[in-house]
Amino acid sequence: MSVPAWLEEELAEATGAGRRLDAVDPRLLAMGVFSTDGRGKRIGVALGTKVLDLAAALEDGRFAEASLNPLLAEGPAFWESLRQRISERLGAKGAARRIRPLLLDVDAVQLHLPIDVADYVDFYCSLEHATNLGRIFRPDGEPLQPNWRFMPVGYHGRAGTVVVSGTPVKRPWGQLRGPDGRVEFGPSARLDLEAEVGFVVGVGSELGSRVSGQAFADHVFGLVVLNDWSARDIQSFEYVPLGPFLGKSFATSISPWVVPLASLEHARIPGPPQAPPPLSHLERSEDWGLAVTLEVRLNGDVVSHPPLGALYWTPDQMLAHMTSNGAALRCGDLFATGTLSGARDGELGSLIELTWNGERPLALSDGSRRAFLEDGDEVTISATTVAPDGSPMAMGAVTGRVVASPP
Amino acid sequence: MSVPAWLEEELAEATGAGRRLDAVDPRLLAMGVFSTDGRGKRIGVALGTKVLDLAAALEDGRFAEASLNPLLAEGPAFWESLRQRISERLGAKGAARRIRPLLLDVDAVQLHLPIDVADYVDFYCSLEHATNLGRIFRPDGEPLQPNWRFMPVGYHGRAGTVVVSGTPVKRPWGQLRGPDGRVEFGPSARLDLEAEVGFVVGVGSELGSRVSGQAFADHVFGLVVLNDWSARDIQSFEYVPLGPFLGKSFATSISPWVVPLASLEHARIPGPPQAPPPLSHLERSEDWGLAVTLEVRLNGDVVSHPPLGALYWTPDQMLAHMTSNGAALRCGDLFATGTLSGARDGELGSLIELTWNGERPLALSDGSRRAFLEDGDEVTISATTVAPDGSPMAMGAVTGRVVASPP
Repeated sequence: MSVPAWLEEELAEATGAGRRLDAVDPRLLAMGVFSTDGRGKRIGVALGTKVLDLAAALEDGRFAEASLNPLLAEGPAFWESLRQRISERLGAKGAARRIRPLLLDVDAVQLHLPIDVADYVDFYCSLEHATNLGRIFRPDGEPLQPNWRFMPVGYHGRAGTVVVSGTPVKRPWGQLRGPDGRVEFGPSARLDLEAEVGFVVGVGSELGSRVSGQAFADHVFGLVVLNDWSARDIQSFEYVPLGPFLGKSFATSISPWVVPLASLEHARIPGPPQAPPPLSHLERSEDWGLAVTLEVRLNGDVVSHPPLGALYWTPDQMLAHMTSNGAALRCGDLFATGTLSGARDGELGSLIELTWNGERPLALSDGSRRAFLEDGDEVTISATTVAPDGSPMAMGAVTGRVVASPP
Repeated sequence: MSVPAWLEEELAEATGAGRRLDAVDPRLLAMGVFSTDGRGKRIGVALGTKVLDLAAALEDGRFAEASLNPLLAEGPAFWESLRQRISERLGAKGAARRIRPLLLDVDAVQLHLPIDVADYVDFYCSLEHATNLGRIFRPDGEPLQPNWRFMPVGYHGRAGTVVVSGTPVKRPWGQLRGPDGRVEFGPSARLDLEAEVGFVVGVGSELGSRVSGQAFADHVFGLVVLNDWSARDIQSFEYVPLGPFLGKSFATSISPWVVPLASLEHARIPGPPQAPPPLSHLERSEDWGLAVTLEVRLNGDVVSHPPLGALYWTPDQMLAHMTSNGAALRCGDLFATGTLSGARDGELGSLIELTWNGERPLALSDGSRRAFLEDGDEVTISATTVAPDGSPMAMGAVTGRVVASPP
């Protein structure tokens, strides 16, 4: 949508050069769930650093919901008409007078998990990330596993521990190999971040049917920024042969605002070439790469700019793969890219890559160094895309602080 | 509970020697969800092969729910008082006259998934099963992975494809290695069953806190019989390094009746000895082994009797491990044992073990042979425990038929 003059003026401070990381470009009409003192959860639209109560703005009680799920289940035609209605309401004559009093400062509200997460799947779709981890863990072997170039490899994570940005992350305890090789139960000493993007499913599918990549926009409503916190030491002892479990399931943080796919039409780009060519059920028929760049900050220092657009397996291929065995989709399903790492310096999406397994600690501006995360560290991952006019569009952020966990 | 005479008479046929596999001993007061033509889902109690409408029997509309979750969330004191109320109602003066008309034949109702599944975790807790698979896949190596004796190894499965007994199971397609070694997309040729027991969580826990094994009965309401259908060929290509995904996520079937833990107090037994002794957070403080035996039928032929009581890691240890990193529990969480295999002949819980990776096909009574499941095959897994008086107590069954999946 185009931003009416009154709103542009209202938001000038929030979207200008010194913008806050949690600001969301009003042209995206990103949606989430908020509450204020004394009133229940309801759906909001992010406009810069303001929150617009959707039900109040549209004078339609149907939007006084505690999660986006009922709205997401309605499907793409509804999503589009809703965006139209909001856009018209903001641009209508007298909107400045009518809508301005309904805008709440984001600091004055509480933001909640925007969706009831059904199943959570995490993929492993960055060629650079998979290659880096292969080099770190199997320095003498082939970095990629034999299946990697045939399918977007993924696994199910814990839906019940997906949390909204701002939720403190308690350092997990788990079974680790001590210095003498003995197995002990203790706090993870190798806590990491993973910079990712998550896709939110609105429209489900029938058990036993496949969803093709072409149907991506019929099912997927939008995207969130996601930090898949990882305890590398817990993970490395537990993961053979059934994959990551407790090394991941303590917390997965997502941004509070879901950016509709429909607002990113202009940001679609082809995915990188794939060799061997994917099997026919995974063929790309449209460009579902997205020109989105993340920015990872550790205690305020920018440490990386992982690119979503460099992803080897595009999200339409993830969707096709995930349902290729007939698995049903449900409203609220969340699937994430896996750590986004680019090929260039400064594009790595995890500390294990940035510090090469802790061997080359990062130097922070406060003079300290980090191999992995310490108690009190704050990680903020924000995302930006480019508007049709070339200007940057902020897509919001996910943040979390590591807190100590007592025995 | 003790069964009143009128009910015993009513159920004589169903619970006698020629009992149906789906009968459930009335002493267990197992609960599920059913519907009849023209009326919505509601909670039922399984009495032999009869279903009692709980809300009608107790004349209490609070039980007219479409899933057990609201009832499960209430916690153990409520569960116990509910069992008392049902028991009193069945044994009260005039009960025969009042309750008999409320009993529906199980064939006259439709049974539904008893719970809204929150997260689904599948463990790998049978020493014999893990050892057998290690021998099959790594004949020259150590059968058990280094972590196996330190923790109940597990992973998250797909909650959205947990289905109720009777749901047809479409043969999944997936990426397989063809005879020439090339990767192709086709129907699984190595479809297997896995005989398991699943535990249903009623009371959740806070993110960041651990749930000890001692608190097992404070959180877990009851158990179901579970078939974790597995496509061995899809699984074997996909599972490194992130674990099973599409080889499992096409369907997981559970029995329609949840047997309350409280009805199995007398069936509790110690788990087998553990060496090395488990780390302190996984220590057993009570006997949470359960004297339950499964029976696996393939097209009517009994092919195995896997024992729950032989499980190396007991369910209290699974719960303690699953939350040892601070992961929250939610009402509706389901966690399963993994394939139950015993040490003796006739106790193996999967075809891959029963046929030793297909090398020794099973001979069925119709003259056919099976390495893995064929289209049209029906698998029924039933469970039985022993009553305090030594008589068998049927715990219900999970059944499913394999149907072909077109291209």
